[in-house]
Amino acid sequence: MHDWSLPTAYRYAGIVSGLRKEANRRDLALVVSDRPAACAGIFTQNRVAAAPVQVCKSRLPRPDARGVVICSGNANACTGEQGIADAKRMAQLAAIGIGCQAEQMLVASTGVIGRPLPMQVFESGIPAATRKLDASIDGINDAAHAILTTDTVIKVATRAVKHSGGEIRILGFAKGAAMIGPNMATMLAFVLTDAAVAPPHLQSMLTRAGQRSFNCISVEGHTSTNDTVLLFANGKGPQLSGTALEEYGNVVESVCVDLARAIARDAEGAKHLVTIEVEGTRNDAEATKIAKTIADSALVKTAIYGGDPNWGRFVSAAGYSGVMFEEKDLSLWLGDMPLYRDGVPLPFEAAAASAYLRNNREVTMRLRFSLGSGQCKFWTCDLTPEYVHLNADYTT
Amino acid sequence: MHDWSLPTAYRYAGIVSGLRKEANRRDLALVVSDRPAACAGIFTQNRVAAAPVQVCKSRLPRPDARGVVICSGNANACTGEQGIADAKRMAQLAAIGIGCQAEQMLVASTGVIGRPLPMQVFESGIPAATRKLDASIDGINDAAHAILTTDTVIKVATRAVKHSGGEIRILGFAKGAAMIGPNMATMLAFVLTDAAVAPPHLQSMLTRAGQRSFNCISVEGHTSTNDTVLLFANGKGPQLSGTALEEYGNVVESVCVDLARAIARDAEGAKHLVTIEVEGTRNDAEATKIAKTIADSALVKTAIYGGDPNWGRFVSAAGYSGVMFEEKDLSLWLGDMPLYRDGVPLPFEAAAASAYLRNNREVTMRLRFSLGSGQCKFWTCDLTPEYVHLNADYTT
Repeated sequence: MHDWSLPTAYRYAGIVSGLRKEANRRDLALVVSDRPAACAGIFTQNRVAAAPVQVCKSRLPRPDARGVVICSGNANACTGEQGIADAKRMAQLAAIGIGCQAEQMLVASTGVIGRPLPMQVFESGIPAATRKLDASIDGINDAAHAILTTDTVIKVATRAVKHSGGEIRILGFAKGAAMIGPNMATMLAFVLTDAAVAPPHLQSMLTRAGQRSFNCISVEGHTSTNDTVLLFANGKGPQLSGTALEEYGNVVESVCVDLARAIARDAEGAKHLVTIEVEGTRNDAEATKIAKTIADSALVKTAIYGGDPNWGRFVSAAGYSGVMFEEKDLSLWLGDMPLYRDGVPLPFEAAAASAYLRNNREVTMRLRFSLGSGQCKFWTCDLTPEYVHLNADYTT
Repeated sequence: MHDWSLPTAYRYAGIVSGLRKEANRRDLALVVSDRPAACAGIFTQNRVAAAPVQVCKSRLPRPDARGVVICSGNANACTGEQGIADAKRMAQLAAIGIGCQAEQMLVASTGVIGRPLPMQVFESGIPAATRKLDASIDGINDAAHAILTTDTVIKVATRAVKHSGGEIRILGFAKGAAMIGPNMATMLAFVLTDAAVAPPHLQSMLTRAGQRSFNCISVEGHTSTNDTVLLFANGKGPQLSGTALEEYGNVVESVCVDLARAIARDAEGAKHLVTIEVEGTRNDAEATKIAKTIADSALVKTAIYGGDPNWGRFVSAAGYSGVMFEEKDLSLWLGDMPLYRDGVPLPFEAAAASAYLRNNREVTMRLRFSLGSGQCKFWTCDLTPEYVHLNADYTT
């Protein structure tokens, strides 16, 4: 456990509701703010958006949110009108338990698509979770575990920021593992702070932070139906504004980057965290497009897995990204090793490049273009036989 | 071997030039038309186009082509100015051998990116290939083998068409295996016919056929630097026009579809050929966009591999394709089994659906939208541990 600075007036629970088949597997999380909190959200851009996503979208942003209830093991996606009713009922049960209006409670789900929720599990489980709410690290630990699917570790990030009104604390936790494609927030993440921030500022801050964190990771590029990031701010002091708001936004972004990197690092079957740095494009969007195309290529991912410095795969992926460039505009490094300069292949030590890939858990490739000042930092993982095995037999 | 109807006045060779390390592995193919042939080409849309692609593009379409020389094992891509000179020299050596102008000869390559061609191999190898030219099935067999990389079988398709001027024959052969993404022609294919067709007609015919065949397959969606499809027509009779030209175009298309399907079927490590039928979109382009997004999803591909009817992955892939639709617009079948109708999940026999995937080498999924009359038929393969192993150690 980290030495966590916990934001004030939040409580957490993570329990075994019985939604999952595995005995003693936590599958229901609840996060509650003891006072009304400003809340903003960013969501999947998939046209097939899960029921809880639709419910959250209709309720956010708002100044008086009280928390979120989350289940893992069932996505409540592709479930029609019944799914919407079920998501609303989950929120209502949590709201009854803590004593607030149903609309003040948000809801999220992750798991298998296309199965109705077994609601009887929640009729008893959600009240039980409200009775277990706990403000300590134990509560966070339980909640962070309860949202996982095939993740192997919990993902938590914290920051404390000095401020004229006293210290502000930020806590984020997330789940990832697979169905991670960078189109909005690609998983579940919850960021809690005791700062006071007006909902419109909170929303624009989260949108910007998401663009540079959760939108810059990819496991296999498959955008989930359930992606949800919620940012709560329940501070009592004067609302942040001006430079203080801007600086605070940067800290929120760094929390989001930590969580996003943790998701790429703990992707299903992954053996490498790969950072792709693209610079010198006409604008940031071009850099992101190139980085995402490289990140999503199975040929790039298998080369990294195999410790094979087959850099033609990196360059050719950039070539089909849709961004216009000429070969002479492009140079490439793997770690510190230059492999390709201004469109000309460089002699390089294949054994050293291979050793770099084989001996490091975290590796970096850098593509430099001569077109402008656009840039992007993007995170992905390798593609391993374990990923295939894990996903060849997930529902059945 | 099929009972092939061979187009007249073509000869073929496939030899061991020494480009590949493996002893006795054919790596150099030559196809020659004994009389000047109209020739059209379609090529990769990758911004990083290999040297032979650039040379072909500058020479096509033309009325007097005499053939194409092809090497496998080295892509001659990302090789700068030297690569262009080397590709031209390959064509020149073949032209000298058969006695024509260098510009009448085309050139193609496939293999590892970023390595200079060992030209001394071709200085002797290409003259040797010209001496081995053979009009029989043996010659075709040699040539079809010499262009393969990790393919496990040769891909050949033939047709014979009755025509007022006598029978027209069409022969196509191709290679695929990996780095197959549907943006133009995604591999090497050569289609030879003894029809008489003017170059502009030949070009538009090939463009249209490619759009419905090679552009409708995907292995991992990584568009190669070297994709090349060439269509030769060396007929002496009157040039095809009107209805006869149109009918002939349909036959050319069916040859291209045969080759494209054969590539998806023999993709690296593939255990399934998956046909994705999309219908009822606003236009064909939308149907193709949806089909390609599904085809490129690692989660869809691993589900097929595992015999797991996890249809939420199919629907959610459609959802992030970029095509606008509502869930109620969509219905889904796996084989004959309806799984999802008008946005509502249907009860289905998971065991029967799983058996369908496990027991069939070729499987079909169908997505029906209620938006219009657009449609597409698309072919892909599953993602297997073998694919990962094959690509984790390809260059080194």
